[in-house]
Amino acid sequence: MRDVELKEKSLGERDKKHLWHPLTQHKTSPEMLAIKKAKGCILTDDKGNEYIDGISSWYTSVYGHCNDYLTKKVAAQMQQLDQVVFSGFTHEPAVKLSEALIKILPQGQQKLFFNDNGSTATEIGIKMALQYHHNLGNDRKVMLAFEEGFHGDTFGAMSVSGLSVYNGAFQDHFIRVERIPVPTGENNQEVLSFLKELIKKQTIAGFIYEPLIQGAAAMKFHDAQGLNEILKICRKNEIILVADEVMTGFGKTGSYFASDYIDEKPDVVCMSKALTAGLLPMGLTSCSQKVYDAFYSDDIAKGLFHGHTYTANPLACAAALAGVELLVSEKIQSNIKNITEANLEFANKLESHPKVKNARSKGVILAFELNVKMERYGNLRNKLFRFFMDNGVFLRPLGNTIYIVPPYVISEKELQKLYSVMEEVLEVF
Amino acid sequence: MRDVELKEKSLGERDKKHLWHPLTQHKTSPEMLAIKKAKGCILTDDKGNEYIDGISSWYTSVYGHCNDYLTKKVAAQMQQLDQVVFSGFTHEPAVKLSEALIKILPQGQQKLFFNDNGSTATEIGIKMALQYHHNLGNDRKVMLAFEEGFHGDTFGAMSVSGLSVYNGAFQDHFIRVERIPVPTGENNQEVLSFLKELIKKQTIAGFIYEPLIQGAAAMKFHDAQGLNEILKICRKNEIILVADEVMTGFGKTGSYFASDYIDEKPDVVCMSKALTAGLLPMGLTSCSQKVYDAFYSDDIAKGLFHGHTYTANPLACAAALAGVELLVSEKIQSNIKNITEANLEFANKLESHPKVKNARSKGVILAFELNVKMERYGNLRNKLFRFFMDNGVFLRPLGNTIYIVPPYVISEKELQKLYSVMEEVLEVF
Repeated sequence: MRDVELKEKSLGERDKKHLWHPLTQHKTSPEMLAIKKAKGCILTDDKGNEYIDGISSWYTSVYGHCNDYLTKKVAAQMQQLDQVVFSGFTHEPAVKLSEALIKILPQGQQKLFFNDNGSTATEIGIKMALQYHHNLGNDRKVMLAFEEGFHGDTFGAMSVSGLSVYNGAFQDHFIRVERIPVPTGENNQEVLSFLKELIKKQTIAGFIYEPLIQGAAAMKFHDAQGLNEILKICRKNEIILVADEVMTGFGKTGSYFASDYIDEKPDVVCMSKALTAGLLPMGLTSCSQKVYDAFYSDDIAKGLFHGHTYTANPLACAAALAGVELLVSEKIQSNIKNITEANLEFANKLESHPKVKNARSKGVILAFELNVKMERYGNLRNKLFRFFMDNGVFLRPLGNTIYIVPPYVISEKELQKLYSVMEEVLEVF
Repeated sequence: MRDVELKEKSLGERDKKHLWHPLTQHKTSPEMLAIKKAKGCILTDDKGNEYIDGISSWYTSVYGHCNDYLTKKVAAQMQQLDQVVFSGFTHEPAVKLSEALIKILPQGQQKLFFNDNGSTATEIGIKMALQYHHNLGNDRKVMLAFEEGFHGDTFGAMSVSGLSVYNGAFQDHFIRVERIPVPTGENNQEVLSFLKELIKKQTIAGFIYEPLIQGAAAMKFHDAQGLNEILKICRKNEIILVADEVMTGFGKTGSYFASDYIDEKPDVVCMSKALTAGLLPMGLTSCSQKVYDAFYSDDIAKGLFHGHTYTANPLACAAALAGVELLVSEKIQSNIKNITEANLEFANKLESHPKVKNARSKGVILAFELNVKMERYGNLRNKLFRFFMDNGVFLRPLGNTIYIVPPYVISEKELQKLYSVMEEVLEVF
């Protein structure tokens, strides 16, 4: 009897009974759409409708869904070694991944600390900055961050996030953070003056920043030269530079990391999302020798006593290693170049449209504002989302910002489809 | 040339170059041991030495390593759907897992909120408690927790952890927490009186507790009746009960959850570790309808705006669903019963030994203190660890506390080997 009932109900209906979805007000949100399968750039729902995954499933599945090369490597790893405690032990997937990653990380990165997602990657970045100064005997307990930055949802990560529209219940519990505006090119001198004053008054331990592009702030670009000047001043004042490359890392901006475009290199880099190529969760926080050395001591308490159970999970390491192998391949590099060029051309075309504000692109990321007022999670935004889905395209507008971060394996035809549906939106809304 | 060098170096040596391990002071710690493969209860290092995994790799691999049933399910899922955004979308592995889990969760649990590890599971538990009262308009911003509790390493999770020997660099940043001693049976009335006074003075939003057994505090047991009285008083005062079952969940105590032994049921349950059966990371926070309803509103801001990218990762859901299927099977239930009985007998035997203090067991968990003073991460403890490894047994003493949490598939012979090496320790140390 029960089984018959279950079979009659759709997945979307069964979902409602016990599942609480992230970033969702269930009372006002529509029924969840059940996705049955994914392959390459195509998501298929339980009715057989297909959608081009225009944002690589939150910037993860950049080599395409259920990629044969990746899944074979993970399947093989599952037969060999699934999990082992990473305190006291090591294993080949972690060692090989570390050797492969160091080659592509921004200059100066030397040590890797594993964790499980973007929030834990930035929490560890914050802890490295605070404990670096603590271990050196410096009284520095304030973090510096950009306005509208987003660094995750755990308490430390929430604290440094300036984009806290829905953090009302928690903000009394945050760690101390000072904020500066992002450099726009026009305001660079003001930001620098403001920063210099802050540094005089405050005891800043570290600066956490999304280099070049703030993802959750709706793909907001800022000025590379301005950021470079900020980083220079911070470094001169011994403020630990924590680059949050969770969104930008692994080729999205056209280079391996967004920090590659900036002369002043980070002390710490936070990674996740495309790190494991859209297969399974992992985070990673890398750092320079200087940071590591501040924890290396005969005093046990100067170590970083942080550790998640699945730290350096061998399956996740195998996925990440295979992902890096694909990323550095000629094929993927050439794909990224092609998408970059097509995006630039499309952004140029958009610019002259009266309904478009601020068309921009960098690497595979393209974004623009629809010149229509709408709230981040409001009804009009939901209508926009619906329009894309009805036209076979999965995009996830942030308010009136429309953007794509397509998989690197997207076909010319699929990419043109993304562009053309975005153009249709300009006629309809 | 470079490849030749790599081949000549052992994994342990290569590990040193770029890897920073969790809970490790690298200056004083020995070289990491490279594990090459794992099958069932056996870990094999790169020299071919075998070790019985006496703690299920931090309480995760309870159905044995590289378990065929589990790996086949995950391999099949990898061919179907690897990852999809869980905001706006759903999928079969998540729906099926929710239906299977609700059947075995403590009574009253109704909704599941996915995340990636134990720390995020408790962070969400804390956020549910704080925002529950915030949404209801109650001014309650303090969390209640046990002394020596451990709930994770992110800032919120660290805040409620009383076991903060190495948190010196961060404790100025913690959320407000009040602590009570664990009930021992003898002190129950004092703890209750103390709690009642605290409640009068404080505005406590939630109580987070490891039911029955505090894992990181060195498998410290407390009194079920005493805990029940504490939970009753908290519930009477509308304090949200957050059971951290990250370690105790999924059969370890002999029942599905430790909360099963306690009449007063939790409002929120935090899960991870054995949830995904030792294959890959996932966390989960479940709650009652009452908690969920406080977030269900026409006001978008009353939602829980928390979301990790890989939330409800289909591979992790497939592993967890297969894990629950094994857990409820007659075979595994019978194994748990057998280990439980063998442990009780062995604990009885240990009790009379002059070198043993406080021998105890519950389900597959067995622990005792070696009557020798040693530090949690000191040299003597490392010697003890070495002794176990040299005898083919992976145990991970916490100071002078020796404990086992064996996989449910451990053979009679392997279990007897664990016991006999523990007995040898009593002769040597």
